Amino acid sequence: MGNNYGRALRIDLSTRKIVNEEIGEDVIYKFIGGKGFAARLLYDELKPGIDPLDPDNILVVAAGPVTGTNAPSFSKAVFATKSPLTYIFADSYVGGTLGSKLRSAGYDLIIVKGRAEKPVYLYINDGKVSIEDANNLWGKDVLEVEKALKNKYGEEAQIASIGPAGENLVSYACVCHQIYRQAGRGGIGAVMGSKNLKAIVVKGSGKVEAFDKSKFNKVVKEANENMRGNKIIQEGLAKFGTLTMVPMAQAMGIAIVRNYSNGVMEEKVAEQLSGPEIEEKYKPKKLACFRCPVACEKPTRIKTVKWGEIETETEFETLMLLGPNIGITNYQTIAYLGLLCDRMGMDTIQTGNALSFAMECYERGLITHEDTGGLELNFGNEQAVIKMVESIAYRKGFGDILAQGVRQLARKIGRGSDKFAMHVKGLAFPAAWDVRGAQGHGLSFAVSDRGACHTSSDVDFIEFSGAPGIADRFSLEGKPKIIKDTEDLASVRETLISCIFNFLPAEIHLRLLNGALGKDISMGEFLRVGERIEQLIRAFNVREGKISRKEDTLPDRVYAEPIPEGPSAGHTISREKFEEALNIYYELRGWNKDGIPSKKKLEELGLEKAAEEVGV
Amino acid sequence: MGNNYGRALRIDLSTRKIVNEEIGEDVIYKFIGGKGFAARLLYDELKPGIDPLDPDNILVVAAGPVTGTNAPSFSKAVFATKSPLTYIFADSYVGGTLGSKLRSAGYDLIIVKGRAEKPVYLYINDGKVSIEDANNLWGKDVLEVEKALKNKYGEEAQIASIGPAGENLVSYACVCHQIYRQAGRGGIGAVMGSKNLKAIVVKGSGKVEAFDKSKFNKVVKEANENMRGNKIIQEGLAKFGTLTMVPMAQAMGIAIVRNYSNGVMEEKVAEQLSGPEIEEKYKPKKLACFRCPVACEKPTRIKTVKWGEIETETEFETLMLLGPNIGITNYQTIAYLGLLCDRMGMDTIQTGNALSFAMECYERGLITHEDTGGLELNFGNEQAVIKMVESIAYRKGFGDILAQGVRQLARKIGRGSDKFAMHVKGLAFPAAWDVRGAQGHGLSFAVSDRGACHTSSDVDFIEFSGAPGIADRFSLEGKPKIIKDTEDLASVRETLISCIFNFLPAEIHLRLLNGALGKDISMGEFLRVGERIEQLIRAFNVREGKISRKEDTLPDRVYAEPIPEGPSAGHTISREKFEEALNIYYELRGWNKDGIPSKKKLEELGLEKAAEEVGV
Repeated sequence: MGNNYGRALRIDLSTRKIVNEEIGEDVIYKFIGGKGFAARLLYDELKPGIDPLDPDNILVVAAGPVTGTNAPSFSKAVFATKSPLTYIFADSYVGGTLGSKLRSAGYDLIIVKGRAEKPVYLYINDGKVSIEDANNLWGKDVLEVEKALKNKYGEEAQIASIGPAGENLVSYACVCHQIYRQAGRGGIGAVMGSKNLKAIVVKGSGKVEAFDKSKFNKVVKEANENMRGNKIIQEGLAKFGTLTMVPMAQAMGIAIVRNYSNGVMEEKVAEQLSGPEIEEKYKPKKLACFRCPVACEKPTRIKTVKWGEIETETEFETLMLLGPNIGITNYQTIAYLGLLCDRMGMDTIQTGNALSFAMECYERGLITHEDTGGLELNFGNEQAVIKMVESIAYRKGFGDILAQGVRQLARKIGRGSDKFAMHVKGLAFPAAWDVRGAQGHGLSFAVSDRGACHTSSDVDFIEFSGAPGIADRFSLEGKPKIIKDTEDLASVRETLISCIFNFLPAEIHLRLLNGALGKDISMGEFLRVGERIEQLIRAFNVREGKISRKEDTLPDRVYAEPIPEGPSAGHTISREKFEEALNIYYELRGWNKDGIPSKKKLEELGLEKAAEEVGV
Repeated sequence: MGNNYGRALRIDLSTRKIVNEEIGEDVIYKFIGGKGFAARLLYDELKPGIDPLDPDNILVVAAGPVTGTNAPSFSKAVFATKSPLTYIFADSYVGGTLGSKLRSAGYDLIIVKGRAEKPVYLYINDGKVSIEDANNLWGKDVLEVEKALKNKYGEEAQIASIGPAGENLVSYACVCHQIYRQAGRGGIGAVMGSKNLKAIVVKGSGKVEAFDKSKFNKVVKEANENMRGNKIIQEGLAKFGTLTMVPMAQAMGIAIVRNYSNGVMEEKVAEQLSGPEIEEKYKPKKLACFRCPVACEKPTRIKTVKWGEIETETEFETLMLLGPNIGITNYQTIAYLGLLCDRMGMDTIQTGNALSFAMECYERGLITHEDTGGLELNFGNEQAVIKMVESIAYRKGFGDILAQGVRQLARKIGRGSDKFAMHVKGLAFPAAWDVRGAQGHGLSFAVSDRGACHTSSDVDFIEFSGAPGIADRFSLEGKPKIIKDTEDLASVRETLISCIFNFLPAEIHLRLLNGALGKDISMGEFLRVGERIEQLIRAFNVREGKISRKEDTLPDRVYAEPIPEGPSAGHTISREKFEEALNIYYELRGWNKDGIPSKKKLEELGLEKAAEEVGV
């Protein structure tokens, strides 16, 4: 294949077998890269119903055909597996330099299976691969692991590792990279932990080049110009990182406060936590992924009163969910909590939700301090929260229950608590946004292939855009089609793998792909790849027996409780409208009323095996 | 069919035969109404290559299944025919009360063929139809005809008529209704003229009701709420009519000035011509179409210095094209010119373009006052313009050439003048917008089924919306898919027939349709109707031999001359990018590189005859 693309590495940790494989040209045409390869592998190779922590579950790490080239913001890697949190497909994307380094080292895809007898890490160095002893790393937190492995292999070595949370199989343990970056969602770190795989270390010196360089470089120039001309990037993300979204959430009244019980923060809090205020006060540095002109990462050195000087990176999701969502409004505390989660290797979205849900249960008297091991788990109790985060990572006491995630927690607590357990299919709600004020976005949470995901479609951008006829953010009208279309687009974006924050249009993505591979894939074929991946993942989830219409729903709170204050006050999602919109979405996808893909649709996309196994 | 829908009236003016027909349920399912019925009739019944002014050309007048009910803003009617201006399919929509009255009178569709021996008008009164002598109306202008027929039949009679321009076969003569409303585009008035058909008079007392009233009324309530919540309607159209767009065009630098040679008006002019200023100064009345809560029509009584007191309605297109576009900035003069065109029964868009094009030719010395019959046809020459408008309507002198439209004019003048002849396929550019600053909108002009049309897609709303990744108005990236999708949506809107200014989402349209007919058509089927209509019209245009890739283009000016000043300064459409985007659009439509529909796509949509005749 053009630009030497399609080099796979297959590792069985049980047998210590290491095999190089080549991905066929037909597979590349059908699935392109990252998310696509992962979907195919999980569908074709996993035994239906397998326990996610079984050695036979597989972990996929992949780059895309443009990754590591001089195209801007194409450096991410995807981690994918069957999730121990949701029990369905999970994919999660990590920024930094891992994806590009993987390709420099000679691989585009890694498939890990089995379980090592003792803790190990994987070492990949310019095509040479070995399984190394990790006994002395086991138990170390992410900061320590990064430091130890960089000491050994040099600063240029790129590391993906798990912390104590992953080792202890916390269902939302993440995979960490460069301290501040995570493949955060779906508990992929626990799958690494279950395989006794502490880290992956990658070194590589190969240059990644496009097949058709002159064609490719022309598109790269265009892509850079496009990004320079984008106001959201230049005046938002490049200046304040993702914290540019704090005032936006507040202005629309869709901020996350105390387990989704309000849409606005107190004015003073909103000001203190906004990007410009933090910029002014803490003067964060800027950190870019490989060849990214945006540099949205803002590592910040903070002199705290309680914990001395710390360096951390608090992006939007962390800030909201470990902040106002759990009643904490002091930036320093939020930053410290974020750092703690990063060191333990736990998803801050899921952690924040587990805490806020437990806090609401505590304040409603559904659990007491006997359940919490004596902690007064009220909103805003800083000391309790810090203690609880550590207890989760090490699965101590009540922390062991919180470690199972908000869905499981609600099942245990019972007594109607599921009504305010903010998750879809086990994946907790992200901070972007309170969906009662972004209702199309809410529907996309309900139908997303991995649970409540804020990046699975771009419908929120459209509903905030002001375009008449479709841009009423309090309505579901017109949204199913936009969700379906932008999900397919997001899917090709994630298979390429492009960062969501370059906001590049599909044509530039396609031209980069064609330049990189020296091919002439058409826009129609390209969009069909997106649809194919979405349908295959749905088929996977259906085959797991975990997904049908009744799981494509939202927690009761968003239907029953209006946002009490602010610009979105009074709004809920109408249950009736939701069901109507879901019908339309299913029809546009070619699914039956129960959400099961039709044989015809699956066959049309060349997914014959799925058509036979799950199609109706 | 539910709510008594599908009642057609077929009239042959040559033989004076009048026949009632019923439209089959299968046809209703496939084409729904207005634009759909028209497309089918023209495709199935017209001899390919027929002269548009031949008696055998047919004129279609249609309503839709929701027309005339209590749904808001469903009162329009469509006129369609093979156009004497473009020689392809033409459809044009007229507001007012004609559509709803037609249904009250017992008809949903009229098909007129043949040529009367002497001038006639059609009289429809509660199911009774007669062909009446119009000798004493022939030669009268539109105001006089309306008055005479209202005198005879009463105020409640609804009239569609042509003026002198239609009688004299001016290629852009329009059909007029209630003085201020026109089916303006494509020269449909000339086809009426060629048939010696001066007017259609409709009286009816039947009540139009939905089949499933309770279901329907629920949706009507929703539709009204939706429109009440729409800011563009409430703060724009309902207050200032379409003139709310004047400051918008100026602010983006995409106003139409002197034959598209600049994107901004002088500040003073822009202020004088803006909605709020005119509101303040002239206090226009508000006039609504049947059951429309928007009431965008603003009849205005003006005490002019030169022409005494006049009453007229100057909407956005008229204001720009008979104003700054021809160098006239005095509102009173523009209003008078608009009234003159309305009385003569000529499209103001096409008239403005013919004038501005001729003026640019005159100022460049490509034509002289010998050609113009002694007129100094400089930009801004008010007296010359007034004289010329009359000369066009009566086809006197140079007016006879202008009456053929800007495409034909450029062919006659030659010498490279086609480079700034602003039309696509003969249909002149509208005032919304200068496409160098709304480039997706430009592509939609190029591919629209009737020539340069500003209502054939909603891509301009999206490119002005600010949604990242797709909303760069100076780029074509991401636009082909939006154009294709919103064209299909516009097509169902126009087959329903809904007004573009209610901005209702497709779901409400669909629920209105289902309530009106007592059916359960799905969203997928509904969107397919839109696509089917678009493809059938393309097939019609291809079969006429008039359309292939080389006609899907824009005048040279938009590629070669940057907008010189203002917020869009420096921008042109890149020819290379245009061709790339066109390729993508063709692929998404299932057309080959030459723009011809594939057999497969046509068959897929149940258009077997078209597949056989034109599919590749």
